[in-house]
Order: sequence, then C-alpha cells, then structure tokens
Amino acid sequence: MSRVAVIGAGAVGCYYGARLAQAGHDVHFLMRRDYDAVAARGLRVTSKDGDFALAAPAIARRSEEIGPVDWVLCALKATAIEHAEALVAPCVGEHTRILAVMNGLGLEERFAGWFGARRVFGGLAFTCINRGEPGEVHHLDYGPLLIGHAEDDRAELAVAAALWADATVEVSTSPSLLAARWQKLTWNIPFNGLAVTAGGITTDRILAQPGLRAAADATIREVVAAGNADLAAHGEAARLDADTLAATMIALTDAMAVYRPSTMIDFVEGRAMEVAAIFEEPARRAATLGVPAPHMALLAALMRALDGLRRE
Amino acid sequence: MSRVAVIGAGAVGCYYGARLAQAGHDVHFLMRRDYDAVAARGLRVTSKDGDFALAAPAIARRSEEIGPVDWVLCALKATAIEHAEALVAPCVGEHTRILAVMNGLGLEERFAGWFGARRVFGGLAFTCINRGEPGEVHHLDYGPLLIGHAEDDRAELAVAAALWADATVEVSTSPSLLAARWQKLTWNIPFNGLAVTAGGITTDRILAQPGLRAAADATIREVVAAGNADLAAHGEAARLDADTLAATMIALTDAMAVYRPSTMIDFVEGRAMEVAAIFEEPARRAATLGVPAPHMALLAALMRALDGLRRE
Repeated sequence: MSRVAVIGAGAVGCYYGARLAQAGHDVHFLMRRDYDAVAARGLRVTSKDGDFALAAPAIARRSEEIGPVDWVLCALKATAIEHAEALVAPCVGEHTRILAVMNGLGLEERFAGWFGARRVFGGLAFTCINRGEPGEVHHLDYGPLLIGHAEDDRAELAVAAALWADATVEVSTSPSLLAARWQKLTWNIPFNGLAVTAGGITTDRILAQPGLRAAADATIREVVAAGNADLAAHGEAARLDADTLAATMIALTDAMAVYRPSTMIDFVEGRAMEVAAIFEEPARRAATLGVPAPHMALLAALMRALDGLRRE
Repeated sequence: MSRVAVIGAGAVGCYYGARLAQAGHDVHFLMRRDYDAVAARGLRVTSKDGDFALAAPAIARRSEEIGPVDWVLCALKATAIEHAEALVAPCVGEHTRILAVMNGLGLEERFAGWFGARRVFGGLAFTCINRGEPGEVHHLDYGPLLIGHAEDDRAELAVAAALWADATVEVSTSPSLLAARWQKLTWNIPFNGLAVTAGGITTDRILAQPGLRAAADATIREVVAAGNADLAAHGEAARLDADTLAATMIALTDAMAVYRPSTMIDFVEGRAMEVAAIFEEPARRAATLGVPAPHMALLAALMRALDGLRRE
C-alpha cells in the first residue's frame, strides 16, 4: 500500500486518485472547490467500467496537512504550472515520486528543476472524463494511462506500473516520455483546438463536417512530424507513425460520440485554457525545428487570442 | 447622366450609390431596413473625404418600382446571391449594364447565366465602410473601386469607368476581373477570417499578435498561389505577386487602426456570413488545382462551423 497525494483534484485527479483508493492505497486529495461536498457526501464516480464511491476519502485544504507521501499524483491544469511547486513541495520527502498527469510539453522539465528528474514521471490519460456536480466525476469512455519517466529509466517505470497493479486502470509504460507526450498531443491539438475555434463544439461535430475532419487529419500529421523532429533533436530513437496515429485518433474520436474536450469546456465556461503547454510550445518547437506546421501555428494563435478575450 | 438602380442598400451600396447621386446621376435605391429613415431624413454619409447628404434620394421598396436602368449597382451580400436574379431582373432592359460590387468568387458567373456575360461587371471596393444608424453610412478609410468586365472587354471597361468620371471615387479598371477578385481576396480571407475565428476582434488586434500577424501573411501568400493557379487554369496572363500583396495588405491594414471587417460585424451580430463566396469557393479551387492552402482550408472549415452555430 502506498501513501498518495492527489494535487489538482479536477476530473482527472479525482478519477485516477479514486481508482488508487479503490485499489487499497492511502489516498489524500487536496481539494478546493469540492471540499465541502466531498466532506459531506464523499466522492462519487460514474464509470463505464462500473460506478463506485469513496464514502469518506481523506481530504485536505492545504498540502501541508497531507505531508510527505510515496507518490504525488499531480493533475493540475497546465495553466497552474506556476503554482505546482508550492502545492507539491509539502508532500515531497526523501523517497517521494511525482507523477504529473497533465497535458502539454515542458512540464516534467519544471518538476525536474524543482525536485530532481529522478523522481519525476509523466502520465498521459487517454480518457473521456468530465466533472459533474461537486464531489462527482463522470468517466465516459476509455481510460488507459500511459506513463513515462523523466530519465526514461526502466526500473523506475516498473515501480510506477506497480502502483497501479490492483487498480481498475489499464496502465502501460513508454520507453520515451517525450514520445508519449507527443502522441497525446496528436489528439489534444486537433480536437481541443478545433472544438474551441469552431465555436465550442463537441467532437462529433468536428468529425461530421468534412472540412474540420480533414483539418483534424492534417493537424495530426503535422504534430507527428514535429514530434519526430523533436525526438530526433533530443537524441531519442522513438518515432511516431503518422498514418497509424491519424487513423487511430480519428477512429477513437468517432467512437466517442458527443464528447466535450476539457479545453472546450474551459472555453465555454470562461476559464483559462491550456494554450501554452498544449498549443504554443509544440508550435514553437515545430517552428524552431523547421517543420512546416500551419495548422498548429494557426490554432495556437487563435487559441491565444480566444483565451485573451475570455479574460477581458 | 445615367439612370442607376442600387440593389442591396447596405453600407457599400449606399456609399457608392450616394457618390453617383452626388455626381449628378439619377440614382434609385432599393431599400428595406432603412426605407422609413431615409424617407424621413434622407441619406447621410460621414466620410474621410468630406461628409455629405442626399436630402431626398429616390427610394423604392420593390425593384419593379424602379424599372429598367442604364446601370444596376448590385451590392447584395454574397449570401443573398440566390435572391439576386429576382431583385435585379426588373431593372434590366435591353441596354442595362450590371456592376456587382460584391466579395468572393463565382458571382459574375451567376449574373452572366441570368443576364448574359456581355453586360456583367464586377467591382471590388477597397474601403472601410460601416453602417451607422438607419439612413447613415460611415466611410472610414480608403475608397478605391477596381472594376473588371466579365469578358475582360476593354471598350466595356471604358464605359464603366466613364460612369464614375465625376464621382468622388477613385476608380480603376482591371484587364482581368478574375485577377481583381483574387486580389481582393488576399485581404478578405485573412482579415475577415481571422477577425471572426479569433473571437470577433478588430484588425489592429490581428496585427498586434505575432501569431495572428504571421497567419495573415501566410494566408495572403496562399491566396496569391491559388489565384495564380486559377488564372493559369483560365488561360489568363495576369499574375499576382505574393511579396507585394503581403506587404501592401498588411501595411494598409496597419494604417486602418481599429477596423471591424464586415464579416466580423455579421458574426458578432449573429447574421449569416459570406462563407461560400469568400472562403469555401477559393479553398475549393486551391484544392482542385493542387495548391497547398492549409490556412485557407482551415479558415473555411471554421467559418462554416461558426456560421452554422450563429443560426442554431
């Protein structure tokens, strides 16, 4: 049994944290918005793999109340990266490992700078999860977690996988964290980007309009090309395959039916969007590496503009 | 003196029609929204070239009241093209000429099909004009009119230019109507498109954000490439120059300061946008001709989606 701190108890943090608690781990949730609701009624998960609830999960308002743990599961939005060090540090002891289940590029580098790369992992959640009422999370579809290590250490990856051995989560490890991050971006950039820039629409409507569907396909291929150039620039052997990922991501999304990507929800609800980590940093790397990526560049520029408007 | 019917008395139709009336022509305006206001108080134009007013312009609620004229100035929105034949036909006699001051591709072909190509002209208004209160038009900047003939006939172009000889409008003629239309699109596609997809922003904000400014430049170059391929496919000798047009359109727009493109106004006011003529037909031609045009394609797809949302 491991002692776990969930920092960033949104839909993703609550869901994966609850799965770890369900598997018998000692999970502590740092909560803000949902604290009172969870204190009163527990944490409820509706899931395509079976609903369940934690009647009285351990919750805290401040990280100091949790203290050092074996694992920090950090599921903050990438927009909150500047607050991550202060929120995570009180839970970090000598042997603590940190799994950042966040989207975008450049995040592990920040954690590595604060806490040392040796203990830092990245997690990519291939899943459809939304928040419901306070204290409620809806797991709609999929659910696999792909984990990489900041130093791509195999022994460390085995330790990370072991944490999830008894959890109802399909976990795999990637020999290249950077490849895993780019792979996840082949979904996030087109589908979060188009869902927002097309006015706040669901994924089914992206795929139903031929022009947007073609744009999704073209964007995936740009992300693959940029990712492969970035992997090569980092001396990594891993490569992504454009045809496979384009077919896979579009087929998975076709099967999702009416899904609201997280950034689209942020957009329509007027919250800050993860523009820097998901859009700008990948587009910046593509430009630096000389990879033509007009869809990535245009989506990044539009997302930046739309994010600015939300907060005026 | 010519007898002129203005069909489509929005900002552009009212402005150029008023300039023809000011020059002494017998101008009749088909009016809908502004009829009562103009009947009561006339038509007022605030202009950077000097304000003026028509105290009692000839106005009509139906084209039949106007009857045959020498010139039809058709300034309908491209979205109303299906209504154009019925609105214009009552004003067309044996010697009537038609000048379509509209944006986009494929419009003259429609007029030519209805009335014969010989009498059809296209006009491109390089100007910043907005409607004000009913009966009021604001001419903010620029104003030149570039006119082409559906059969690129030089003698006919001279007749068209003569109409404007005494008007306070800088008129030039293009030996290629198709080249003129593509040239106008090098402004309309990037600046109308980005102003809408970035959330309904003014042109100054497009140019102030490096990512959007770069997208505008890249889009102009795609439009030029598509236009040149289209001109070649039509056997025309005219060609557009990418560097010149990119520099010119961006410099002209920098000088406009805070301008709201017409499609952006349609967007924020929830009206139908000119998606087919300005975005989809050019993108379709680029695709058919094998010209890479990712910005044009993505903007067309996003505009179609956003236009659909407006009308749900």
